[in-house]
Amino acid sequence: MPREITAFSNPLVKYARDLRDKRHRRAARQFLAEGLRILTEARETARLPTILFYAAASADHPLVHALSMDVEEAGGDCIQTTPDILAKLSGKDNPQAVVGVFDEFEVRLADLDRTSADIWLVAERLRDPGNLGTILRTGDAVAAGALILIGECVDPFSVEAVRASMGALFTVPVVRCEFDAFHAWLRAGPGQLAGLSLDTDTSYRDATYAAPTFLLTGNEAQGMPPEMAAACDVLVKLPMLGKADSLNAAVATAVMAYEVLGQRR
Amino acid sequence: MPREITAFSNPLVKYARDLRDKRHRRAARQFLAEGLRILTEARETARLPTILFYAAASADHPLVHALSMDVEEAGGDCIQTTPDILAKLSGKDNPQAVVGVFDEFEVRLADLDRTSADIWLVAERLRDPGNLGTILRTGDAVAAGALILIGECVDPFSVEAVRASMGALFTVPVVRCEFDAFHAWLRAGPGQLAGLSLDTDTSYRDATYAAPTFLLTGNEAQGMPPEMAAACDVLVKLPMLGKADSLNAAVATAVMAYEVLGQRR
Repeated sequence: MPREITAFSNPLVKYARDLRDKRHRRAARQFLAEGLRILTEARETARLPTILFYAAASADHPLVHALSMDVEEAGGDCIQTTPDILAKLSGKDNPQAVVGVFDEFEVRLADLDRTSADIWLVAERLRDPGNLGTILRTGDAVAAGALILIGECVDPFSVEAVRASMGALFTVPVVRCEFDAFHAWLRAGPGQLAGLSLDTDTSYRDATYAAPTFLLTGNEAQGMPPEMAAACDVLVKLPMLGKADSLNAAVATAVMAYEVLGQRR
Repeated sequence: MPREITAFSNPLVKYARDLRDKRHRRAARQFLAEGLRILTEARETARLPTILFYAAASADHPLVHALSMDVEEAGGDCIQTTPDILAKLSGKDNPQAVVGVFDEFEVRLADLDRTSADIWLVAERLRDPGNLGTILRTGDAVAAGALILIGECVDPFSVEAVRASMGALFTVPVVRCEFDAFHAWLRAGPGQLAGLSLDTDTSYRDATYAAPTFLLTGNEAQGMPPEMAAACDVLVKLPMLGKADSLNAAVATAVMAYEVLGQRR
């Protein structure tokens, strides 16, 4: 049966609220996702929250009802609560109707089947959670096999990344590893590594992409280190006609990914 | 001569800090931009802050020095200050070395020369400041003539938008108007209006774009209203192969803009 919690001091509220903080996420290996759209996406990929908070006013919404039934059946906690507490959990003045606490999930390189997709996204030292989420969302759209995060990247389970992914965190596998491990895995089978770089004369539209294509985007501020560029099968650049010398990392990744998709179709 | 200010209570600090708030920006018609990269970009386009705050430790940096000389010569205030005050102004724990207060600037439709660029970006009810800044940054890269904001959009002079633009706010003109005014202006001369939509079978790669192309992207959550879609010369869609039905608005705009650029070159 759903419980009702209206006190900020409730331990479950405090536990969930603390998951906004990276240290607590790491210790608990759980994270927050909010909004009916994202939680429904999660449910459709068979991921259910272990704790579901929902606004009393939304209890009769058919998707909230379906979600809470599934959570209860799976042994999770369903908690009917107030807009104030939902606002506290989501960190927004106009909170979503639902907030869920999920177990983190980890995919390893060895779990990936490179024949399952034509496009794979690889990001190196990605620092901005919004960029990470947006890249996941693009990954969903181009049917990427996974997002492979190289080196010290922002946490894909951060509230901002999950929010920007609009649910794609649940549909696109995320792997975290070091470049050496990725490179060894890559070279053990077919796969073209295409890197985005400023140090090349090849336009991204002039390159030929061979499936499976692994699109490598470097750090937002510095691009990729020389040894990674050297490991690429092809380096390509995007035309930059203005005063700036770079695009937003999520934008650059998407322009590349859609070019590969366009050539493929 | 530069002044030194180390007190949070100083009226200039309070004035600048308040510009983070939309109400204060609207009243003062001034805004904040931060970081040496963005302020140098501004300086190169002949826009100087009326007040320049910089960290005492950065006073000898050649770009800070050049900037402060120019600001003084133009009759502005140069204020040497502490990291704590810069952090307060920028709202970040690791503040940039410089923060500037700039006069807002407004471009009108009548000021635009549609023959000056092949690509023009048009966004309708854009709500996210990060998206707005990122679209400006893309606009700079594809040499867009302007970003035309239709209807109730987020403020392009908000701290988040300026930050995400990485200086493109100073290089890409921004026009704010209603759709009727834009449409009347558009139809008074050459120009193809290409809208991004879910309600079309035409892939964005199959359309032919005629210069000047005006790329219209609708609201993040709802897309564009039917009357705007009806006003377009061509509606195109981006392939969506995953579970989600839309891309991030800045990403979608960029993929479209690079396709137009690619066809043109």
